[in-house]
Parts: sequence; structure tokens; C-alpha cells
Amino acid sequence: MAGLLDLFFDPHGVAVIGASADPSKLSYGVVRNLRNGGYPRPIYPVNPRGGEILGLRVYQSILGVPDPVELAVIMIPAPLVPEALTQCGKRGLHAAIVITGGFREAGPEGAELELRLKQIAESYEMRLIGPNCVGVMDTHLPLDTTFITAMPSPGGIGFVSHSGAICGGTIDWARATGVGFSRIASLGNQLDVDIADGIAMMQDDPHTRVISVYAEGLPDGRRFVEAAARVYRRKPIVMLKAGLTTSGTRAVASHTGALAGNKQAYLAACHRAGVLVVHSLQEQNDIAIALATQPLPVGNRVAILTNAGGPAALAADELDRHGLAMADLTSGTLDQLATMTPKGAQLANPVDMLGGPAASMFESAGEVLLQDPGVDMLMAIFVPQAITPVPDVVASVVAAARRSTKPVVCCLVGGESITESIITLNQAGVPVYQDPNRASRALAGLHEYAQIRAREEPGPSPVDGANPRAVYEILRRRWNEFGAGFLDPVASGDVAAAYGIRTPGSGFAATADEAAALALTLGYPLAMKLVAPGVIHKADVGGVRLGLDSVSAVRSAYTQMVGDRSDWRVMLQEMAPRGYEAIVGVQSDPQFGPIVMAGLGGTLVEVLRDAAFRLAPLSSDDARGMVAETAAGRIIKGVRGNAPGDLTGLIDAIVRVGQLAHDFPCISELDINPLIVGEAGSGAWAVDVRIALDTEPREPADVSEAAQPR
Amino acid sequence: MAGLLDLFFDPHGVAVIGASADPSKLSYGVVRNLRNGGYPRPIYPVNPRGGEILGLRVYQSILGVPDPVELAVIMIPAPLVPEALTQCGKRGLHAAIVITGGFREAGPEGAELELRLKQIAESYEMRLIGPNCVGVMDTHLPLDTTFITAMPSPGGIGFVSHSGAICGGTIDWARATGVGFSRIASLGNQLDVDIADGIAMMQDDPHTRVISVYAEGLPDGRRFVEAAARVYRRKPIVMLKAGLTTSGTRAVASHTGALAGNKQAYLAACHRAGVLVVHSLQEQNDIAIALATQPLPVGNRVAILTNAGGPAALAADELDRHGLAMADLTSGTLDQLATMTPKGAQLANPVDMLGGPAASMFESAGEVLLQDPGVDMLMAIFVPQAITPVPDVVASVVAAARRSTKPVVCCLVGGESITESIITLNQAGVPVYQDPNRASRALAGLHEYAQIRAREEPGPSPVDGANPRAVYEILRRRWNEFGAGFLDPVASGDVAAAYGIRTPGSGFAATADEAAALALTLGYPLAMKLVAPGVIHKADVGGVRLGLDSVSAVRSAYTQMVGDRSDWRVMLQEMAPRGYEAIVGVQSDPQFGPIVMAGLGGTLVEVLRDAAFRLAPLSSDDARGMVAETAAGRIIKGVRGNAPGDLTGLIDAIVRVGQLAHDFPCISELDINPLIVGEAGSGAWAVDVRIALDTEPREPADVSEAAQPR
Repeated sequence: MAGLLDLFFDPHGVAVIGASADPSKLSYGVVRNLRNGGYPRPIYPVNPRGGEILGLRVYQSILGVPDPVELAVIMIPAPLVPEALTQCGKRGLHAAIVITGGFREAGPEGAELELRLKQIAESYEMRLIGPNCVGVMDTHLPLDTTFITAMPSPGGIGFVSHSGAICGGTIDWARATGVGFSRIASLGNQLDVDIADGIAMMQDDPHTRVISVYAEGLPDGRRFVEAAARVYRRKPIVMLKAGLTTSGTRAVASHTGALAGNKQAYLAACHRAGVLVVHSLQEQNDIAIALATQPLPVGNRVAILTNAGGPAALAADELDRHGLAMADLTSGTLDQLATMTPKGAQLANPVDMLGGPAASMFESAGEVLLQDPGVDMLMAIFVPQAITPVPDVVASVVAAARRSTKPVVCCLVGGESITESIITLNQAGVPVYQDPNRASRALAGLHEYAQIRAREEPGPSPVDGANPRAVYEILRRRWNEFGAGFLDPVASGDVAAAYGIRTPGSGFAATADEAAALALTLGYPLAMKLVAPGVIHKADVGGVRLGLDSVSAVRSAYTQMVGDRSDWRVMLQEMAPRGYEAIVGVQSDPQFGPIVMAGLGGTLVEVLRDAAFRLAPLSSDDARGMVAETAAGRIIKGVRGNAPGDLTGLIDAIVRVGQLAHDFPCISELDINPLIVGEAGSGAWAVDVRIALDTEPREPADVSEAAQPR
Repeated sequence: MAGLLDLFFDPHGVAVIGASADPSKLSYGVVRNLRNGGYPRPIYPVNPRGGEILGLRVYQSILGVPDPVELAVIMIPAPLVPEALTQCGKRGLHAAIVITGGFREAGPEGAELELRLKQIAESYEMRLIGPNCVGVMDTHLPLDTTFITAMPSPGGIGFVSHSGAICGGTIDWARATGVGFSRIASLGNQLDVDIADGIAMMQDDPHTRVISVYAEGLPDGRRFVEAAARVYRRKPIVMLKAGLTTSGTRAVASHTGALAGNKQAYLAACHRAGVLVVHSLQEQNDIAIALATQPLPVGNRVAILTNAGGPAALAADELDRHGLAMADLTSGTLDQLATMTPKGAQLANPVDMLGGPAASMFESAGEVLLQDPGVDMLMAIFVPQAITPVPDVVASVVAAARRSTKPVVCCLVGGESITESIITLNQAGVPVYQDPNRASRALAGLHEYAQIRAREEPGPSPVDGANPRAVYEILRRRWNEFGAGFLDPVASGDVAAAYGIRTPGSGFAATADEAAALALTLGYPLAMKLVAPGVIHKADVGGVRLGLDSVSAVRSAYTQMVGDRSDWRVMLQEMAPRGYEAIVGVQSDPQFGPIVMAGLGGTLVEVLRDAAFRLAPLSSDDARGMVAETAAGRIIKGVRGNAPGDLTGLIDAIVRVGQLAHDFPCISELDINPLIVGEAGSGAWAVDVRIALDTEPREPADVSEAAQPR
């Protein structure tokens, strides 16, 4: 049914159900916008009263609307919508936008009404946007099904928004600045068409060069990841999501009832899906404008051409914070610049032409900089002063940008002197920012996307020696006996071992004699760990003893740890070699599925909060990236004379954990803490493994297939 | 001579030396701005050609200008400036602004010329702004000595800027948005009047409510700290400094030749001086507007009143990131809101009145929220739509704000519909932001300043048992023998011990026999550390052995570590008790003097980069703050069953190190790593102390005085 999505932006004929002849009504606005916005195909107002609106005949029912008609825009009171939608289905429509509010967001009755809409849409194979939205725009067709004052200029940004108000505010801003958009979709309650569909609706539009998304909840997280992953190499996705903090989460819940979800899972999903994450509307638009208009940079080196040193220094600071570098200019470039810039100009990068350069110098010096092989991007900064006319400078920057195959952005520091120039630049396709830091952030966005596009495809690396059937059997046994909950430590270790994760030999003992006998089979030295109902953090209650090296040591440790408590027992375990302590874990996220975590282990994990997150399953590259992001990685590389640890072993363990979590979604939680990373070549040992189940394990048949590398 | 600074903003009579009658000249612009800007006192153009400019008589020489005249604005070619300045001195002037460029920034000749200006100014007791600046403005007198198109509206922001271009850009922006300024000073090369003076010039101005500073270098850092510390409890200081990164530092150096300086030292200085640190022009202005117009909040709880849920959720996220909270509304508030907001409004905080509330609801519901005792600040968010006129909403928000004793800020999400409303709000003294995150950041700035103002005065806590004379003697001995460089570890330990920092007993041994004899006097267990020329990181070469518990262990360790190298020897040291490893250090900063550092110690210090910085000397409160900022503090508190360490001992050691560094500025570097922090009550041990001298130690007389608590 995916092709049906095109009907929202390219319909042959649009019916407006509930169209009013009263210009103060929003439904009049929709007819006005379709007509005055220039939609080139038939428009059919529908209203039982009949008559005429803006010279268009009003039909009394959608059933009477002639061909061609492919999209209905519905804005009648909520209780009447189901009937109208049914009629649309009968009329043979496959696409409807329900602008009307008063559904899920209005309480249980509304939610029930909304459910009816879903059933109706499904029964007629109809796709539905909304309810509770402002509709869609395509500035190129053009098509405007909203009641918003007017459309922005045609351009390259496709915008998908959960919130109609944010669409409205964005359009109002775009019209003041000349920023161009291709398509805009306000999705409202996302009863059917959701953010993932929104992304899909943009992906094949030839005018859309960047997909900009505003989201609150992402109920079907994996679908979003798949939709984004399909498109991100062709088109960048810049995404702003509300509800990434405690306060924001509460605000989102009260706004739309959406579950904002876990922040780390969301960020891991965006990483997998190649999505650029931003944190404000301003940052989103700043980066989208650059991505919509500029080529991608080959490297991270920026040249700054300016008439003021201060803003250039601020820009340089911000570039540095985002990992971009100031380009080193060749002596040839410097010589050329010397001939074309004012006396006294500072020719190092930033190239400071002092207060009053000729406007044309921005073109000539800009071109010289763009031709320098050491320059990947150019930022032109101008602070208006009494001498050089701003429009001339702008024309000069536009001319340099037009001939460039490298990104060019402009920063104009001011207000009243630059209002018109902002529009000129945006319409010419040169991004402009009123603050040097924002210009730097935009260049960083271009560079970030270039890196995302160049990366290896994330996804599972092959895992050899995994035995899913053995894992299934352990999990099934546990499930049959106890249902959901934590596996015992030995079973947990066995699960890890079945996926090729090295674990020390271990067993349980419920008396001192059993402990002594077990020690004999395991050998020394041994670790003893308390197994006691309700004790989660063993170290906190003296429930961990290490380095037991004789039978008497084992006996005495048992007596001290357990005493005469009959419901307590111990696990004895081979001691892992000395090494660095890492943690590798999994949390099953309700939106995104299993998320793998890795970082510094041991008792400090909660204090240092040093952890990286990725969606399972993952590639060696993913795991390597996780290690590189964390202090754990830097420490395990070996610092200050410490021998380096086995990074390869750590990475291998992370990949195996990811595959295990992916193959067994019934695992709701997994923690290896510590994973002891021995010296290079000696591998990584999962010393303490905790695994919890929350759903019934799947059949081994599925499992063995799932465990194959893809 | 400080009172002379007033002459720059309140002079009785201004002479413009080099005034031109040609309207295309900048010097004409200065006369025009003085006159048309409304300066109410005599204006004297000076030019050897004589004549008339804008109806004002042109004097041929400053010597011929009649009384009253108190300020000269000089804009003649650089080589002529010394003579003109001399004549100003002869005429009895004590204040001059040199707008002319071509001095230090133009190379060695210019620097020499600039030096002459300084000598002339000093010989006539003249204060001087510039050279290479754009002059000053006072919008209230009014006075405008610049050639910039026109002044911004009168308001409460005093702006001090290193850069003239940033003044120009800021004024251009202010004129487009209606943001008001009180005084503006462009300081240029800061030959005489510097940032510290700039702050002082704002402090007693009744119209200046916030001091906003843009700086590149701060050559006399301590003077800046003193100037800011004098004023920050009365007026907030918001400061933007370029050159906080590698790229920014290079850009600053190439722009003004200024030394950008060390970032951590700068941040420590701002902490001491009560300065709010910002990182972009936008952030600076956003916060300054709020501080200039709003009362300070009593707490951190924010209510949001909005017609759109999305922007409110984004605002809530950003509030959370800055440590502000969403207020819990009382049931009384909720009941009242229910009577005055549209049906279906979400009454939790954010209070979402849905798309089309009546404009007046922003006033009525806003007042209810402001009266809730659990609300400390209000943010009103409005996204323009087709129904409610923006100007009515704005009037309603202004009315609520006018009657409020709590801060109110407004966020308008849009562009073309809000341009006029931005001016209305700014002129009414209600801060307005086009992005919810920016509004949240501004509220966070208000809260941050309220906290700064409420804090205890930072500064030295009394240090008992310090013996500065003993330290002086050790340092003097070292200096006489070797000059600059590192003290040996024993002498370093003795210096620390003389300031009451606990150190293990220790001594040197140059043979195995000496080591054995020394061990006898120190007792066991002992640590042995290599002392070898050129070996800085002992652990990297096996030069550290711990837990030596017998004479044979000491002898064999000596043989292994030193062998037959005659220029190597060892230090033997009592073993400190087991404990947490912290680091406490000092770096002497060329701009700000000694900076104290504390954080996680041991071999991981470089990887984790967990450190806090403060200016020496410091109070227990300062030291407590440092510990609270770091992971070291969280770890030493005791996590996961580990016993808490002696935080009091750690804080005491930090304060003592600060006092030592302050009393002996000849110490260029001091490192205690590790400082072993034992269990609570057992103190902190400086196990490894490294101290370097770079200048001659001062006389003990100064020292013993300096060591007294103030």
C-alpha cells in the first residue's frame, strides 16, 4: 500500500469536506489556500448546503464529486468524521487528511472515535493523515491543504512534524527569511501515517534535498529506524525530538499522551539510522538550510573570510568545539590574497580584510580561498559598517558560492541593515546566519552528514560459534519453572558462554562441604559470591570474596558469608586473570528493542556514567565506535605505563552480546559487570553475568535462523 | 584617578579633533552623531581649516576651544595623534578617545607610536580609550561619539567590547529588535582603559542594570577579577570571550595580537569574580536582556503558559538541561485556570490553552500562575495562527509582566507575523525569544545570577599551622643552589608539610646500604621511588615499588631499580594508609596567577580529565564546590558499599595548597598525585609532591604577613 502515500502530495483532485463559505472559518481557509496557492487540478468543496466558494461549485456530498478526485481533506466536527470517511471510502478515495481535532487528545471518548476512523480507513484501504493536524503543503506542485496564511517559497527542505503549531511557526519564520521548503506534512495524532511514513513520503521527491523532522513520541521505533536507514545515504535527515529529559517527557505526555521514551535508546536509534540529532528548532533549521543548499565537504577544514576579527574568532572557537579545523592556507593562496585585499589585512586564516573592504573582495578573495586544496568549506562574515553596502557584499558572496563545488555559508552580524540581505541570500541558496556560532554549527552539520554518508553500513557482524539452541534450552527451562525474572548466575553465565563469550568455570554450593568439593573440581584461585534472595548488589553486603586459594580458605569464607542462613548459598567461580574492568549490558527498550551498552565497569560505573549505546545487533565497527567513545576505551588502550588490554576481545564480546540480545528478544535485561579485559591477546572474561527474561522464549527454529549473520 | 573615568560618559563639552565637513568622512559622522544624537552640551569640531560643520563653529586648534570642554575625540592620521594628544593635555583635558587605527595592530612602528600616546597621557594625567576603537555611547544623556549610523533605544544593558565591529553589529541588531542599551564602550587596543575599567565605568551608572562584556585577551587578569568582584553583587556581568579553543586562540592572536590565555584559568577567574560565562553573541544578548529587565527569581521553578504543546515540551527539555524545574501547580491554581482557559486545555504545567485561546487569557491565566507560591518564573509561548491577533497576545503578556514581581519571558515562534511584536515586547521590557530553547536559557541565566548573588563571598579560609618561614627557607635554599626548576621530592614534601598537609616520612638513599639504614628509621611498610635525572613519570619505567616490608625487600628493590647507575638514587617513603586517590595541583597562570586544580588522582587522571579549577587562595566553600563538581567527590563519598573517604581532609588539603600557592607566587607548578584520602576521620596524605620554582622566592617578612587569613 506504500505507493498510496504519494496521493498526499500529488493527488489528482482534492475534495474539502466541510468547506465553509464564511471567510472567518478555517475550512474556508483550506479552499482559499488550495485555490490561491495555485493547485493546478480540480478542487471540490463539499458541504450539504451546496452553493459556491471562491467561484468553485460546492458539492453536497463526496459521493457526488466527479473524477478526478484522489484526496479528501476533512474538517467537520469530530463525531461526524467517521461517516464522512466512510463515504470517502465508498467514493473510491485512498487518501484522507483529517484536520479536525477532538480525538485521542481529548480523552477516552475521542480515543474510541479515533479507533473507528482506523477501522474505516483499513476497510477501504485508505491511508490517513491526522486527525488533529494542519495538513500538507507541496510548494512545487503547488498544493496547500492547510488554513495557514500562505506557503513558504519553493526550496529543498522537506519538513515532517508531529505538531501543527510547529509547522505554523516554521512557515511564518520561513516567509520572513526567504528560506525555501519543498514539502511540509503535519501528522497530528499519527493514527495511520506516522513519522516513518512521513520520511518515506519525502524520499523520492526530487525537490526535497534534506528531510527535517520534529517528533514527540516514536511508538514504533524500529519502523522509524528502518524508514530512516533506507533514505539517509541519499538524503540527510535532521531530527528534533521533544521529551529527552524528565521535564520534557512529562510535557510531551501531557501534550499528546505520547510516550517520549528512553533518551539513550533514541540516540542509539538515530546513530543506527544515520539521523543527525539536534536539540532546538533554531539548530534544526540552521543545519537543514545548509544541507538543502550546499554540496558536502570533503574534509573538515574551514576558511573564514571576514571584515571583523571578533566574530571570526568566535566562529573559530565554535568550529573547534565541533571538531572542525581552521584550514592552513598555502603560500600561493596567501600571495594571491595579498594582491586583492586591503593594505594591513590579516592574511592568516581567518582572512581579516579589516573594517571596510571593497564588496567585490568577498568574491575574489572567496574564490581564491575556495580554490586552495587545503580548504574544504568557506564562511564569509560581514559586519555592516558605514562604508561598504551590504547588498553588494551579499551579491559578491553569492557569486563566489555559485561557482563553488565546496560549501559556502554566510554570517551577517546585525539587524536592521541586513533584513533584506537575509532574504536575498536564502533565495540565492546561500545559507545565512546572524551569529558566528550558528554558522559554525551549520558547517559542522554538513561535515557530520558527510561522515555519516561515508561510514560503513552498520548492522550485524558474523558471530561464529554461537549456539542458539543451547541458549533456548536454558531460557526455556527457566521460563517453564519460574516464568519471568532473573536467571541464576550459573545459568546466566552458560547463556553467555553459548554465544562464545568467555566465562570462568563455576558452580553452586549450599553447604561448606559442597563448596569444598566444588573447589576441588574448579581449581584455585577461586571467587565466592553470595546467592541470596533479594540481594542485588552483592558487594554492598560483603557478599564477594576473591582469591580463595585453598580448601580451608573456601570453607572459612563460606561460613563467614552464609553462616546458618538456610536460604542463602554461594557461587564459586574460577578467578579471571587480572585486567581492566568493563561493563557490557543490554536493555530491551519498548520502542527500539534491545539496546547494547558498554563502558567502564566495576563499582565506579554509576559514578562515572561512562557508557556508549547502540541498537542490537551490531557490527564490529559499531562496537569499535562504542569503545572509542568511552573512557573505558582510552584506559584499556594503556596509559602511563600500564599494558594495553585486549581491545579485540572486548569488541568481540560486545558484538556477541548484541547478537544474543537480538536473537532472544525475550531477554529484557543483561549485564556483564565486570567484563575483565585481560592483556592484549588474552581475551575478555565475563565474570558476573545477570540475565532477566520478561517474555516466553521463542522456538529454536526461528532462533537458529536468526543467529545467522546477514 | 578613577573618577576621571566618568568623563567618558558624562563630559561637559566634547571636542572632535579632525572633524571633517565632508559627509562621506567618518569624522563628519562623529560630529553628526553628537549633534543629532542629542548631546545636550557644547560640541567643538576642531580642524586647522576652520569653517563650520552642521552649523557648529570649527576651531583651528584644541588650544583655542573655550570652556566647558572635558573630552576629546581624536580621529586624525596615526602619526599626528601624539601631537594632538599633547595639545589636549595642555588644554587641561583629562579624557580622550582615539578612534584612529594604525597603532599596535599595524606592526612594530605602530606599537612604538602607541607607546608615545601612553607616555603623553600619563604625563598629563589623562585617561585614554583606544586607539583603534569606535568610541562610546550613553543613550540616556544622550552622548554618541561614534560614527555608527545611530544609537539603540535607551535601556538597561551596558556593553563593553574589545571589538568595534561587534559593537556595530550589536547596535544594528538592537535597532531592529527594540532592545535597549544604557552605555556602550568600544575599547579597541586598550592602551589605557581596559575591560576592568570598562566594567568600572558601568558600575555606578543608574541606568545600567546588567554589564555585558565582549573580550579577546585579558592581559591583566587579576585586575579584571577585582573589578568584576567589586560589582557583581550589585549588577550581573555576562561575559563572552573569544579564544577558548585552539582555533579560537590562534584567531584572536592574529586579530589583535592578544594572548587568549588558558581556558581553565579564565573559567576559574569568572567563577571567582561572579561572572556569567556565555559562548555566543546570541546567548550573551538573550541573557543580558532578561537580566536588564526582569526581577531575580527566588527559586528554579518555571510555569509555562502556551498555545502549542510542542514548543512547550522543547522549552521544558532545555530548562531541565540547565537545572531548572517545571513548577508543580497547586490545586487552587488548577481550579482557577479551569475557569479561564478554553475547554480541553491541558492544565498541568505546561498549561496548554490549545491553538486558539483568547488573547486576554495570557494575562488572566498568567497572573494566576504568577500568584502560585510554587512558581518562581513564567514563560509565555505563542505560535501565531489564524485566529488570535499577535499584538493582542503581546499586550496581554506585557500586562501580566508589568504587575509581576517574578520574572516573565515570552517566546514567539515565527517570523513575519511577529516582527513588530518583538519590538513591542522589548520596548515594554519583556524579553522575547524566537526559539523556546533560547527562552529557557535566558531563565537559566536569571537563576544562575540569583545563585551567584546569594553565595558566600569566595576567598581564603584561615589556614592554621602554616609555617611560611620554613617554606621560604626551603625554597630559598633550592633557588640559591639551582635557580629555577623542580625541587627534589623530599624538599617538596617538606614544603607541603610546612603548610599542614600530611606527608609520609621520607628520605633519600644513594646506595643499598643507605636504603637499609634509612628503612630502619622510617619503619615498614615502605614505598621506594626512583630519583633519576630526566625521568618525570616514574611509574612508566618501573620506578615505583610499594609495600616493601623488610630490609631484604628494600635492598633487593634498590638493586633492581637503580642497578649500577651512579647518577640514580631512590626516595624511601612511609606507605600511606589505603584510600581513594585524588589529585591536587597548582598552575601559575600568567594572567590570573595561581590556579588550584583538584580531581580524580592516580594513573587515570589524564584519561578521565575529571578536574575542577579555582583561583588561589580559596575558601572551604570553594574547595567543597570543587569536590562536588568532580567524579572524585562522588566516588570519595562512598559508592556501592565502599566506605566513604575523608572529604573534610581532602577539602582541608585543597585550601592549604591554595594558600601556599598564593603566599609563594614563585611556585610555578605544584602537583600532589596521588593525595591518598583515607577513611572518614583519617585525613589525606600527600604521597607524591612535585613543586617547581620559576622566580626568586620573596622575603619571609612579606610571606608571614601574606599567610594570615584575610
